[in-house]
Amino acid sequence: MLITPGKILAQINSPEDLRKLDRAQLPLVCNELRQFIIDNVSVYGGHFGASLGVVELTVALHYIFNTPDDQLVWDVGHQAYGHKILTGRRDNFATNRLYGGLSGFPKRAESDFDAFGVGHSSTSISAALGMAVSSVLQNNRERHHIAVIGDGAMTAGLAFEGMNHAGTADTNLLIVLNDNCMAIDPNVGALKAYLTDITTSHTYNKVRDEVWNLLGKMSKFGKSAQEIVSKVENTLKVGLLEQSNLFESLGLRYFGPIDGNDIEHVTDVLNDLKDIPGPKLLHCLTVKGKGYGPAEKDQTKWHAPGLFDKVTGEIKKKTYNKPQAPKYQDVFGHTIVELAEKNPQIVGITPAMPSGSSLNIMMQAMPDRAFDVGIAEQHAVTFSAGMVTRGSVVYCNIYSTFMQRAYDQVVHDVCIQGLPVIFCLDRAGIAGADGPTHHGAYDLAYMRCVPNMIVSAPMNEEQLRNLMYTAQLPKIQQGKSAFTIRYPRGQGVMPEWRTPLEEIEVGKGRQIREGEDIAILTLGHVGNFAVEACEILAKQAIQAAHYDLRFAKPLDEALLHEVFQKHDHILTVEDGCLPGGVGSAILEFMSEHGYAARVKRLGIPDHIIEHGEPHELYYECGFDAAGIVKAVQEMVAEEDLRPRHELAKI
Amino acid sequence: MLITPGKILAQINSPEDLRKLDRAQLPLVCNELRQFIIDNVSVYGGHFGASLGVVELTVALHYIFNTPDDQLVWDVGHQAYGHKILTGRRDNFATNRLYGGLSGFPKRAESDFDAFGVGHSSTSISAALGMAVSSVLQNNRERHHIAVIGDGAMTAGLAFEGMNHAGTADTNLLIVLNDNCMAIDPNVGALKAYLTDITTSHTYNKVRDEVWNLLGKMSKFGKSAQEIVSKVENTLKVGLLEQSNLFESLGLRYFGPIDGNDIEHVTDVLNDLKDIPGPKLLHCLTVKGKGYGPAEKDQTKWHAPGLFDKVTGEIKKKTYNKPQAPKYQDVFGHTIVELAEKNPQIVGITPAMPSGSSLNIMMQAMPDRAFDVGIAEQHAVTFSAGMVTRGSVVYCNIYSTFMQRAYDQVVHDVCIQGLPVIFCLDRAGIAGADGPTHHGAYDLAYMRCVPNMIVSAPMNEEQLRNLMYTAQLPKIQQGKSAFTIRYPRGQGVMPEWRTPLEEIEVGKGRQIREGEDIAILTLGHVGNFAVEACEILAKQAIQAAHYDLRFAKPLDEALLHEVFQKHDHILTVEDGCLPGGVGSAILEFMSEHGYAARVKRLGIPDHIIEHGEPHELYYECGFDAAGIVKAVQEMVAEEDLRPRHELAKI
Repeated sequence: MLITPGKILAQINSPEDLRKLDRAQLPLVCNELRQFIIDNVSVYGGHFGASLGVVELTVALHYIFNTPDDQLVWDVGHQAYGHKILTGRRDNFATNRLYGGLSGFPKRAESDFDAFGVGHSSTSISAALGMAVSSVLQNNRERHHIAVIGDGAMTAGLAFEGMNHAGTADTNLLIVLNDNCMAIDPNVGALKAYLTDITTSHTYNKVRDEVWNLLGKMSKFGKSAQEIVSKVENTLKVGLLEQSNLFESLGLRYFGPIDGNDIEHVTDVLNDLKDIPGPKLLHCLTVKGKGYGPAEKDQTKWHAPGLFDKVTGEIKKKTYNKPQAPKYQDVFGHTIVELAEKNPQIVGITPAMPSGSSLNIMMQAMPDRAFDVGIAEQHAVTFSAGMVTRGSVVYCNIYSTFMQRAYDQVVHDVCIQGLPVIFCLDRAGIAGADGPTHHGAYDLAYMRCVPNMIVSAPMNEEQLRNLMYTAQLPKIQQGKSAFTIRYPRGQGVMPEWRTPLEEIEVGKGRQIREGEDIAILTLGHVGNFAVEACEILAKQAIQAAHYDLRFAKPLDEALLHEVFQKHDHILTVEDGCLPGGVGSAILEFMSEHGYAARVKRLGIPDHIIEHGEPHELYYECGFDAAGIVKAVQEMVAEEDLRPRHELAKI
Repeated sequence: MLITPGKILAQINSPEDLRKLDRAQLPLVCNELRQFIIDNVSVYGGHFGASLGVVELTVALHYIFNTPDDQLVWDVGHQAYGHKILTGRRDNFATNRLYGGLSGFPKRAESDFDAFGVGHSSTSISAALGMAVSSVLQNNRERHHIAVIGDGAMTAGLAFEGMNHAGTADTNLLIVLNDNCMAIDPNVGALKAYLTDITTSHTYNKVRDEVWNLLGKMSKFGKSAQEIVSKVENTLKVGLLEQSNLFESLGLRYFGPIDGNDIEHVTDVLNDLKDIPGPKLLHCLTVKGKGYGPAEKDQTKWHAPGLFDKVTGEIKKKTYNKPQAPKYQDVFGHTIVELAEKNPQIVGITPAMPSGSSLNIMMQAMPDRAFDVGIAEQHAVTFSAGMVTRGSVVYCNIYSTFMQRAYDQVVHDVCIQGLPVIFCLDRAGIAGADGPTHHGAYDLAYMRCVPNMIVSAPMNEEQLRNLMYTAQLPKIQQGKSAFTIRYPRGQGVMPEWRTPLEEIEVGKGRQIREGEDIAILTLGHVGNFAVEACEILAKQAIQAAHYDLRFAKPLDEALLHEVFQKHDHILTVEDGCLPGGVGSAILEFMSEHGYAARVKRLGIPDHIIEHGEPHELYYECGFDAAGIVKAVQEMVAEEDLRPRHELAKI
């Protein structure tokens, strides 16, 4: 290929083009790819540090392996921007994470190069192993299957389960451990300490160099892969004095650690590993944010910094004329500290989301009582349950979508035992630009079907604070019910949010507005859409009553009896899936008590909702203010064949 | 204490009594305890091999540690019979697993000695660590926290997550690894191979002996714990030439392996470990079924053998006068082989339940295409998803209650990507004597709220076969929906079950019986209760129509329109939780289409259902034939204020 310097990337429309280049040209590709990512993310936003860190790995993997026939699985996937740009999505990369545009994560429907869709962590080993086993069954021993997984993602149990199987399955599986010592926040736990140990061990480094020198020599002399492998293994054994490495304990051949940002070395090593059969792990050290100074320095901040000036490194902050409402996350973070100052039994737990959840506020204020347990949602919940048995009052903060990973622990370790763990489900409902893997769509359905479970959702900051206050009261903590509080990502509605803390009676809703024509029942932040809708409807002479349910479980039966006795048109609104959600709980109440009414339910419909700005997706789902107005208009306009109240009580 | 030989156990009413004995008497206690278990289980049934294997561990733990203040957490818990017998439950142990009797698992509500309730595997490390961290926060540095976990349970990700945290938390945590090389079936995977390796390593054994000799000497000379620890560690380091053990990689001090069935040795070692601070792991080798010959020989068979003659070792089999219906499990096992013989892409996957699910039939018939991945439900599902991307047709068989542990994988790795994995949910609904931890109560609710998911349940063996046949057809496998088939534990209803395989149109129910007075809509095996109920009702001149829905999702809309147009009294019946179940799906349909009808839903009510025989629990829940009859009688007797069909369509 003819190369105009500075314009290599523009000529790479697929990895096939990349593979036509000389090795000597790869550093140029890396430079341009890195610059392309900086140019784009600074202007359009998105994840940043992770993709910069794996530029060399990305180029080397596509250069050495025959993608898409060779299966390349990115774990989590927020580091796959370089992969997307090299695999035919360069020219529409500016649509990344926009409504209707490219997904911010690998997605099978988007490209054949995206072997597995992703968004949550730690799935890559299991998925790639599945592909590898299928290849064996289909008598394809040539195809390679590569999982690229971070050290943060390695702490989740799923990754361990995958390795435990991989180590005994004779397949072409290569696990690339992308070790940058970070999840979004710095990685924690024993594994992290171990990886640091082997990285800094002199013995290891010495042997590592010997091994790779040997590999280099062997390949030049054209020896067979078999011989190389055996020599490498002997060297490892002698050199390490039979030291058993954690990964080797699990049956994986371990190679490394190597500098994952050295394109020439990475390319050489991957090329050598290609010929070594069986399951193996390559330990690559990379720097998150590599090549962009500010991002290398403050890796958490630059995980997804928003828009920034790429020259000065200044992150652009919106300026406002009037005071803004806080993020629900910060309300959580400040309120738990406020509560913990008075109640010494209170602790906070997050699985690897200190900054995302704002539990870092508590970690700063009272480090002994706030725990980041790493990417380990299952453990976070069972650990919480254990603490509660000993009298601790535990706020276990997990993103709604990630709580799916601890569902059995919620059922088996918390609810069946009747332990009053407090679950704060962050980013519940539509998550926005992160898309379908991150929408917290199902929690109302999967939580409310379990006994010994209170499920609540605040309509605003004050309600969040009061629910958090209520959950730690002795009357709740001496009871047998877990207490779930779900709230959305981002900004609330109350600039003056530091309201006095007040108890909310469990299972009590409240009336927000009176009206004759229809009753609107909302749960959580969507109540604010209903407030807006009621104003609009009032101007059209439609008087809607509005009730904030506050609890999906237990329902406020007294309030609902009142509603069903007064109204025969009822609209329910929730930021959650329609099947089995709070609207269905209302239908169950209605059926149990023999009410008849026309009920329409608004919420997340029963198909996959893609990514976009929350307001775009609320609109698409039809439960924003406009959607509520439309639904009410339709219901009121329906010819009502039923004599009012005739069947109120069957 | 005065001891009558042969009657020690009768005098132990709590571990306090045990701790009054001389060490020399402990072997006698073990003998009597073992005999007591054999006497009881042979007559009353229950889990067997696991409790026999840990008799010595159980006695030693309660002898050395100050239970219940020291926290003893049994993993899984089916090995805790000895623990129950020593902790005040000897005299009512004959009620074990019976309705209203003792639980077959540790249960907090049953005894202060049951520090954590359990039934599923791999929770003990996280739970005990939570307790230990609470103790530290409460300034109690003396209390001990002990997790007893099997090598099978160690393969689950949750255990790894727990260790990753434990290794960096400075707490009084002791993990006792009860290594018997077994789950219910033989343990699998890389970890198992590793444990075998270190167990048989000469270096290790030699060093082990040195270490324990040293420990023994040190304690006799009254040296401080601190000194002992430091000597032990030095010995380990020198002796093992800095060999890094997997558990030490994770920050746990590793001790062992020791013979866990040697009461004197185990007692000594635990006594020494008591004085060693920080997180540590003791590797004990035990023999499942120890002390009862037949159980030592065939450990899978004797995991829970049913009743047996303790003298001859003959397992008692019921005899029948006429041919019996098969277990649903065996229908699954034979049918997957039948299908796989014709469709080369078919594979079967089980997480550690080959014999329980009867996938062992396929493992025998076509070992390359049936996979036991160990106790690793999350991996089982994501591994399945990976295989499906490469064209495999995957039957992933997981007990309904254990599928809770792979919920995120179902949502994130299967449904969001639209991959047609076939999920066979075994033991769905009431599980029987295993109790609340094992009831598959929530799957209809948590599966049907996810898009790209078909949810079905067969009413009998023929329907199970036909659903299994349908799920692998190209029209399904080329689509985007996962296909769930849920069925109960145990015997079906068709002695002649080898029916020809026929397609069932997805989302099509069927009418079983015509009737005017009420419509009964059933899903799954409870349809057979309805058949019985309809007969009884007919004799009372109540004519009930009966429909077998077959699918909870998608619903058979044509059929439901017919039902709601014909009937204004509708009874739904399911062996699943009432909130969010298929009854709620019917209410959602009704609401969407503006039907009004009196609907009553039968299913598992919204509280924890304890253990008992399935028929006892069906009765308690009110959805057996008698319950259906009663519900129909009540509904028909209600004064119907509503003019028939007036509001059929609003």
